[in-house]
Amino acid sequence: MFDTVHFDLKGYLNKEAQIVNQALENYLPKQGQYAKNLGEVMRYSVFPGGKRFRPILTLSTAAALNADPALALPAACAFELVHCFSLVHDDLPCMDNDDFRRGKPTVHKAYGEDTALLAGDALIIEAFNVAAQTNVPNHPEITGAIVRETALAAGHLGMVGGQILDMDAQHHGATKESLLEVHKGKTGALIRGAARAGAIVAGASPKQLEEITEYSEILGLVFQITDDILDAQSDPDPISFPTLFGMEESKRIAQEKTNRALQILEPWGEKALPLAALANYLLVRTV
Amino acid sequence: MFDTVHFDLKGYLNKEAQIVNQALENYLPKQGQYAKNLGEVMRYSVFPGGKRFRPILTLSTAAALNADPALALPAACAFELVHCFSLVHDDLPCMDNDDFRRGKPTVHKAYGEDTALLAGDALIIEAFNVAAQTNVPNHPEITGAIVRETALAAGHLGMVGGQILDMDAQHHGATKESLLEVHKGKTGALIRGAARAGAIVAGASPKQLEEITEYSEILGLVFQITDDILDAQSDPDPISFPTLFGMEESKRIAQEKTNRALQILEPWGEKALPLAALANYLLVRTV
Repeated sequence: MFDTVHFDLKGYLNKEAQIVNQALENYLPKQGQYAKNLGEVMRYSVFPGGKRFRPILTLSTAAALNADPALALPAACAFELVHCFSLVHDDLPCMDNDDFRRGKPTVHKAYGEDTALLAGDALIIEAFNVAAQTNVPNHPEITGAIVRETALAAGHLGMVGGQILDMDAQHHGATKESLLEVHKGKTGALIRGAARAGAIVAGASPKQLEEITEYSEILGLVFQITDDILDAQSDPDPISFPTLFGMEESKRIAQEKTNRALQILEPWGEKALPLAALANYLLVRTV
Repeated sequence: MFDTVHFDLKGYLNKEAQIVNQALENYLPKQGQYAKNLGEVMRYSVFPGGKRFRPILTLSTAAALNADPALALPAACAFELVHCFSLVHDDLPCMDNDDFRRGKPTVHKAYGEDTALLAGDALIIEAFNVAAQTNVPNHPEITGAIVRETALAAGHLGMVGGQILDMDAQHHGATKESLLEVHKGKTGALIRGAARAGAIVAGASPKQLEEITEYSEILGLVFQITDDILDAQSDPDPISFPTLFGMEESKRIAQEKTNRALQILEPWGEKALPLAALANYLLVRTV
């Protein structure tokens, strides 16, 4: 089994986040370009940012499959930009109407609603521009595959579709099945796509791609379950895993699924240690 | 010179629009897919649609450069989806707050503001999914180039950037220079990108790409000038070419630029006849 206890996950995440931040810095509009105010608003929504969990997953997956992680940087940043775009639009008055995000005013509070709408639009468009800068030597066909993977994860079959299903569920009442369906799109699709993009850049075999898909679907599910468990301690009311499945059953599912994820990674050997540590971290943060 | 008088432009546009509509029909989500309501809203914003001017420009440009226009269909549809996305978000209450579009309720009036926001998001994401389906035999590198061209035209350096500049200009007052800058992004960038995408699919030489870029920049400018002239007859007040340049000067610029566009196309021969007829049509519709 993986020795995740002696792996410095915090140090690893910090180092990788720095790499992602530097790349995002390079990709975003420069001062003085056309419509320069827009560049400022885009940067406001991307920096300082959170843990950069999705792009790090892309890089870790590429590395676990023996690829140069630098080749996966455009894909990694594309997934982070999709995530940032979704936060800007989710915060808008017609959605969650939030005033603060990560301790500072949301984009529409700081710059106005029209500018926030357009900044979100510019971020999702830039995500695809960055994804299309994927450049794997001798494999030009991978560039289009990364763009399609990003769109699949973000669009009507993924994150945005999940948001629509979530709105439906809130109108019509949630069941265990609808909760799973909502999260599969709303939070799961980007995590799944981010990992798969790393595998695609690495030229994964169909079997490896299948394995990383299952691993990342588990990661997304456990992320959501443990998030719900942590939230339940402050606000026990909303529709969530603890309310629909019960606290004990939620913890049991999270543990069982994490075991399965580690089992998938086992044959991959030492290079998959960061992926194993990530899976383990998501689980133990609720203990 | 081109015999645009005896060219059946109306018949040509109808035939090409049918090809575009059939392709869009195939690309958009099917009934019963994940989040099926969303597919319905996406279709509501794409059909029946307008003249399909941008995608037809992509197809006509590819044909003028001796390519099979079918190879340019994904790029063509991508540009139409970007256009449809922009209409949905432009109509939102925080932007133009329009209740009707093409004789039917706008998306947010028909389905609610949150759904309209997400449907616009799903459309722009689908635009890139479709662009990334570009598949030119033996030229896999063209797929990424089409995605980047679409993002350049749509994003902070193109259409969305132009919308931000337009908001600035309305706050701070418009000059001739700012009017030209706004339109270069807001309406020009998609027209330019749509034509360039057709040329890129056709494997245009750098000289041909430069020529089609100049032609399409003129097309976008004349489109805007003649639109403003037509609008001035019903509402003479808003910032426009007639108000800033005067009516006679606006008409003179449109005529002079159209002559230049036809001059660029001249050496391309008979295959460029639809492009010439398009340029001529935009001019004469104000006479």
